[in-house]
Amino acid sequence: MAADEVLRRMFEAAVDAALPAKVVPAFLPEPPRGRTVVVGAGKASAAMAQAFEASWRGPLSGLVVTRYGHAVPCERIEIVEAAHPVPDAAGEAAASRMLALVADLGPDDLVVALISGGGSALLALPAKGVTLADKQAVAKALLRSGATIHEMNAVRKHLSRIKGGRLAAAAYPARVVALLVSDVAGDDLSVIASGPTVPDPSTFADARAILARYGIEPPAAVRRHLDGAADETPKPGDERLKNVTNRLIATPQRSLEAAAEVARRAGYAPLILGDAIEGEAREVGRVLAGIAKAAKAHGHPLKAPCALLSGGETTVTVRGDGKGGRNVECLLSFAIAIEGAPGIHALMADTDGVDGAEEVAGAFVGPDTLARARAEGLDPRAFLKNNDAHTLFALLDDQIVTGPTLTNVNDLRAILVD
Amino acid sequence: MAADEVLRRMFEAAVDAALPAKVVPAFLPEPPRGRTVVVGAGKASAAMAQAFEASWRGPLSGLVVTRYGHAVPCERIEIVEAAHPVPDAAGEAAASRMLALVADLGPDDLVVALISGGGSALLALPAKGVTLADKQAVAKALLRSGATIHEMNAVRKHLSRIKGGRLAAAAYPARVVALLVSDVAGDDLSVIASGPTVPDPSTFADARAILARYGIEPPAAVRRHLDGAADETPKPGDERLKNVTNRLIATPQRSLEAAAEVARRAGYAPLILGDAIEGEAREVGRVLAGIAKAAKAHGHPLKAPCALLSGGETTVTVRGDGKGGRNVECLLSFAIAIEGAPGIHALMADTDGVDGAEEVAGAFVGPDTLARARAEGLDPRAFLKNNDAHTLFALLDDQIVTGPTLTNVNDLRAILVD
Repeated sequence: MAADEVLRRMFEAAVDAALPAKVVPAFLPEPPRGRTVVVGAGKASAAMAQAFEASWRGPLSGLVVTRYGHAVPCERIEIVEAAHPVPDAAGEAAASRMLALVADLGPDDLVVALISGGGSALLALPAKGVTLADKQAVAKALLRSGATIHEMNAVRKHLSRIKGGRLAAAAYPARVVALLVSDVAGDDLSVIASGPTVPDPSTFADARAILARYGIEPPAAVRRHLDGAADETPKPGDERLKNVTNRLIATPQRSLEAAAEVARRAGYAPLILGDAIEGEAREVGRVLAGIAKAAKAHGHPLKAPCALLSGGETTVTVRGDGKGGRNVECLLSFAIAIEGAPGIHALMADTDGVDGAEEVAGAFVGPDTLARARAEGLDPRAFLKNNDAHTLFALLDDQIVTGPTLTNVNDLRAILVD
Repeated sequence: MAADEVLRRMFEAAVDAALPAKVVPAFLPEPPRGRTVVVGAGKASAAMAQAFEASWRGPLSGLVVTRYGHAVPCERIEIVEAAHPVPDAAGEAAASRMLALVADLGPDDLVVALISGGGSALLALPAKGVTLADKQAVAKALLRSGATIHEMNAVRKHLSRIKGGRLAAAAYPARVVALLVSDVAGDDLSVIASGPTVPDPSTFADARAILARYGIEPPAAVRRHLDGAADETPKPGDERLKNVTNRLIATPQRSLEAAAEVARRAGYAPLILGDAIEGEAREVGRVLAGIAKAAKAHGHPLKAPCALLSGGETTVTVRGDGKGGRNVECLLSFAIAIEGAPGIHALMADTDGVDGAEEVAGAFVGPDTLARARAEGLDPRAFLKNNDAHTLFALLDDQIVTGPTLTNVNDLRAILVD
């Protein structure tokens, strides 16, 4: 099989391992004696709802919020769309209705929460007295400050009526089973969609300390709410969460393992370098090129024919004005660093089918990529400099186009070394 | 054994595997019937000369040029010092004398060339009619242009009387044995010190095309010399190089293997990720952290306890005004990305003993590094932002100080995951 075909099948296997239609049926909870209410939020959550109602034997009702354009037809679960990444009133209204839906359930009832990446913005329900604009002002200040994701989440969860375990607490005493698609490093349940069904160890005091640490003076309403410290998030061990089960149904690592299995069957010994590789995309590309070249030159980290796989989300510092995405930028930098080395092929693509702003999942490169570009009068370095990798790969006809896959376990970077 | 002690011994093993005193004796050539003349250039070349004359049984004479401060006492080989990385008249004079020393040797004579990193600047002997200033103007323009190392070398070799195989050609018909310490990615012989004993496939036409490609208009004397195209470099198969043998006596990969063996004996399964990992130092640190965290979380790329090793030279884009170096910057970024994860320790250091401008080889980090810094009121992110990692590690007493080792096979980045 040609290297590009192996790579394409690896990508398909990675996406398949995260598709709600394929994984949800294996994680159905025990049916309840009472009612079944489905809630949920995230970019994959409408597809999860569709998969759930297709395989659920029994009555159910529910409401799930997804991103504009990510709805799919459901018969029994209402799907609403809202804004991402900047929340809007549609998301706020959906979150409010979701809390109401689960509020009066009893111990014989079941809440199924379908949680995926993006759910944090889609479930933006500010604490009483705080506005969406207040929350956004704080979120922006934290982003600029260099605060870690955990610090940002600790603050967010204390400005919300639904995050940080509050959705599950609201459903008490009903049983809650959350099915989660992970798009976060380390699959930290409390980070995916800001953990609406997961206990939150952080406190109001932590939230105040974090704002102080970064010298952030929040809007007056936020200050009042944090100082008031009323209605703490449910902590680990909280009685209201004792009937909650959180289940990861798709993760970057499982998708990498599915892709690795395809490589192995095609005769390439796979090595999964990591499921949460982060860093500036073009620099990650150079590092991966160094590893691929070492495999070829020295048989370390493993002997060719081999496949080097990694996942996670790189970042792009935009300096140009081209059409780029983190996967194609990483890939183009990889190709430049490989300098046409024979026998090295790679695919880098986003499992959600959308790399950057373009509806293109990613692209392929091979030993002849640079030469083909130059033969067309295209300078690969200039495209990289201008953050314009999508344009280059389009001109070379090396794009991977799947359309939105309606799931997301981050990126697949796959390199074959012959 | 404590993790830090394992790491320290790994670094010592990496340096030892590249020390001229330890490796030169294994690579002595057959003694000639005639004379033995030693020449050479590079940061390790004086130490190589000392090791050579200490183990050579028979008469010899010679001249070796090294960087200011890198001379060591020799009895029979003259050691001169010159400027690096910007050449000076001392290096030019030494190069000229070296060509004269080998010019009238016969087929029974032996030239031993001791070549190591930095030799290119130390052997800067411009072609006739071209000045050092002319060469430097071209070199600077090429650096700014984004030309590859191979493109820069093609031009350099056509502006030199000694690079690109010309030293070896000058020694014809004497036998030439070059012993090389590699500090370049891929151990490309023609790149180490611009390959004075290695055939050069590039041509005057290539050199002209490269300048044209990057829109560089060289000084008039350079233009005249390149257009004249007189005295081409010796090509592969050139009669004058048929008596030449090039031997790599120390490489990044061998040093990594020596360090890996120390790890294995200490109970850590080693994985060598690559001997030529390049990229912006702080981004490489993040990628390595992602790999280390995956080893801990998933047992991929291999199960703990394990050691992740890599070599090569990262780069630092200086934005602050602190005391930094590529190894400590990579290491500090690694520590920040690891976020105090238990059981992860690392050492990153330059095998030449000098990381950046400081006479410090590198540093250690462990799970408590960030916490210890913060307890002292030191903000690790602020030190990284200011390119000031040496200062932070000095304050934490976590530096590795060896003094200049007089060899160089680039960096050792070693991570232990328990």
